[in-house]
Amino acid sequence: MATQMQMAREGRVSPEVEAVARDEGLDPEALAGDVAAGRVAIPANFRRGREAGRSRGIGHGLRTKTNANIGTSRDSCDLATERAKLRAAESGGADSVMDLSTAGALRATRKALLAETDLLFGTVPIYEAAVEVAERGGTILDMTPDSMFAAVRRHAEDGVDFATVHAGVTRRAISSLGDLDAEPDAPASGNAPAWGDGGGRVCNIVSRGGAFMARWMLKHDAENPFNERFDEMLDLALEFDLTLSIGDGLRPGALADAGDEAQMAELVEIAALVRRAREAGVQTIVEGPGHVPLHEVRAQMETAKRLTGDAPFYVLGPIVTDVAAGRDHIAAAIGGALAAWAGADFLCVVTPAEHLALPGPEDVREGVIAARIAAHAADIALDLPGAREWDDRVSRLRRAQDWDAMTPVLMDPGRAKRVRGSVPPADPGTCSMCGPYCVFRPPVS
Amino acid sequence: MATQMQMAREGRVSPEVEAVARDEGLDPEALAGDVAAGRVAIPANFRRGREAGRSRGIGHGLRTKTNANIGTSRDSCDLATERAKLRAAESGGADSVMDLSTAGALRATRKALLAETDLLFGTVPIYEAAVEVAERGGTILDMTPDSMFAAVRRHAEDGVDFATVHAGVTRRAISSLGDLDAEPDAPASGNAPAWGDGGGRVCNIVSRGGAFMARWMLKHDAENPFNERFDEMLDLALEFDLTLSIGDGLRPGALADAGDEAQMAELVEIAALVRRAREAGVQTIVEGPGHVPLHEVRAQMETAKRLTGDAPFYVLGPIVTDVAAGRDHIAAAIGGALAAWAGADFLCVVTPAEHLALPGPEDVREGVIAARIAAHAADIALDLPGAREWDDRVSRLRRAQDWDAMTPVLMDPGRAKRVRGSVPPADPGTCSMCGPYCVFRPPVS
Repeated sequence: MATQMQMAREGRVSPEVEAVARDEGLDPEALAGDVAAGRVAIPANFRRGREAGRSRGIGHGLRTKTNANIGTSRDSCDLATERAKLRAAESGGADSVMDLSTAGALRATRKALLAETDLLFGTVPIYEAAVEVAERGGTILDMTPDSMFAAVRRHAEDGVDFATVHAGVTRRAISSLGDLDAEPDAPASGNAPAWGDGGGRVCNIVSRGGAFMARWMLKHDAENPFNERFDEMLDLALEFDLTLSIGDGLRPGALADAGDEAQMAELVEIAALVRRAREAGVQTIVEGPGHVPLHEVRAQMETAKRLTGDAPFYVLGPIVTDVAAGRDHIAAAIGGALAAWAGADFLCVVTPAEHLALPGPEDVREGVIAARIAAHAADIALDLPGAREWDDRVSRLRRAQDWDAMTPVLMDPGRAKRVRGSVPPADPGTCSMCGPYCVFRPPVS
Repeated sequence: MATQMQMAREGRVSPEVEAVARDEGLDPEALAGDVAAGRVAIPANFRRGREAGRSRGIGHGLRTKTNANIGTSRDSCDLATERAKLRAAESGGADSVMDLSTAGALRATRKALLAETDLLFGTVPIYEAAVEVAERGGTILDMTPDSMFAAVRRHAEDGVDFATVHAGVTRRAISSLGDLDAEPDAPASGNAPAWGDGGGRVCNIVSRGGAFMARWMLKHDAENPFNERFDEMLDLALEFDLTLSIGDGLRPGALADAGDEAQMAELVEIAALVRRAREAGVQTIVEGPGHVPLHEVRAQMETAKRLTGDAPFYVLGPIVTDVAAGRDHIAAAIGGALAAWAGADFLCVVTPAEHLALPGPEDVREGVIAARIAAHAADIALDLPGAREWDDRVSRLRRAQDWDAMTPVLMDPGRAKRVRGSVPPADPGTCSMCGPYCVFRPPVS
């Protein structure tokens, strides 16, 4: 079968391109051109079926999309909870979910969640390779290149639309982190020094997948298998039209590390991989930071877009301060709005639980809404079709005090209704803030 | 007595300037120069006493400050609740509160709250003039210029540090709104047309004080008394070193209205008033929007700063979308971060209850934290003394997995602790997201 990119290159407008163009108010031929050029990805695994209704595009000129991470961990491993998180992502309006499970029956969880949603569905297969060896009493160092590839294949066979592969974490890129195995000068606290303290970064590697790869590579004195055998990865991707989301394993996990040599070294590797994927007809997404100060967000986005030839850019936040744990969804909304305005196409939701705990369903919903506010703010700034019309519609209804018509078209109608009801107004045409002094009331004459 | 501005112009470093300089890590002489020039305000009413410990500066080169609005409304009128909101503002880390009460015993409420806090304290005296006539069975149209001035004087006598006066809402500025009394072309909904629908704006006037003034002026065919008798206002301000916060009565209440002729016409009036206040030795703050799309925030801030000769700029949000009611604190954090980076000095908290209800204590706290995240993100971008050090400290402790040392230095330690405890990790050195796969754990060998 032909991938979306192959079809677009042959000048065919696939049903998915057609659906996305309709949804976004764009010309299908022009959109197909962007898919052909790799500026837009339409993740759609052959195995998942191709109901056009759930097609979503990510990239240049399209509305900014949001992804919610769900999935188990050792400390919270329950399918019912994951289902509730999936429902929360859907009801919050996310475009995509990633199942990042690291505990329990991974494949069964994945299949159950996949069967229950029409959202784009992504995963990080290396987690499964890691859990697999851990279940046999081993560690991530016992993974083999073949076991890593086998995990990616299983995910593709199950129908995931996109998979993160940390193929840019090369020996060259890791070398920019300094000597991770060196004795640190001075531990940051009374605790035992952590791995990588000898390197130059404040927070070393914070990507789980990136850390797995780097540790494995250093231990085995080997190159990254996903990079070394990237042609094999491309063949696998072609077989399913699996979109490769090239993970940023060395993304900054502290403002101090933002934009450093290691991050840029990995981005250079990623850019080369994107080029090879395009030559092969494989769709890619590029993953980005992370922790980035406000004034560096635009430069980071523009650099990434420039280097990758405008590949769809998928950012985790970015969060603009390291001190907001418990409210990181707000720090991420600030960075995400700026990032999307400056070129990012896909915002990975940061929940209020980030840095502290595995998010629950309510955290997922809060995070999705925050990310959607950021995405929409950017879409307005970019003057995307239909974006500002939404605001104008709400404001006209607000002005008319038409609460019944306004509330359902807000971003989070249920929440708005609850808040309004929290201090009910005596006069139902007003709210309890101003009451008789409402500026929209007819004039007291 | 000499005002802060008068003292600074005489080359005297007041105890307040001394305290603020120490707090901000700045040179006292240089700071006094900024106070003399009106680029920094240190609101400190003579009547409130001048304990240096609670002095706070607002303006150029200082950390971005945050203000929380509290106060009663007809639908929620209870001193205990207002006390709880004051405590919430303090515990959240606000620099200032404004008592915007419009119901109950206004003066008693104000005095009670003033007596209980060391935060900067602001008010909008025109509300009291409006409530006063309403209590006698009248409407805002029954206010008189003298009753308006008398309200400002009462607030000054009670010791408020700064007071909002909508002195820029002139007949000239209002004329830019179009014919507010005209029959509207088409009502926005089945509801009766609202006042001002005949004007050109989507949301007409959304400032309560601005709407009071405009309605009064149009009804009486008179100029704004606060503008016409501004010299009298300056005398009053000098008597108490009352800082005048020049309200933006015509601020945009919808993205569609942002930066329009009416907003700019009022800003031009405000700029002239700031000049006159400076000549008189009166400290001023300038209030700004409102609803502003992301891509217009910087231009608005730079324009306001340019026109007002770098007067301290105090923004309400700005919120970057009209559709986020229920989560407007997030929309405001996005706009506030950008605004403060581009020149705003003082962020007025927008709570999750904005547009829907009078905020309760929990809303106030959420709003304050969101505004502080925005303020801090901007302070980092501006490279203000000490700003980034906070993040680096947190990140080093995070890296060291030193939860006990890290949690208390986060922006919201209590919240972080609750979130972390929501899904407790089996291994207390990790959190429940990654558990055994924590990237900061020593390497599995």
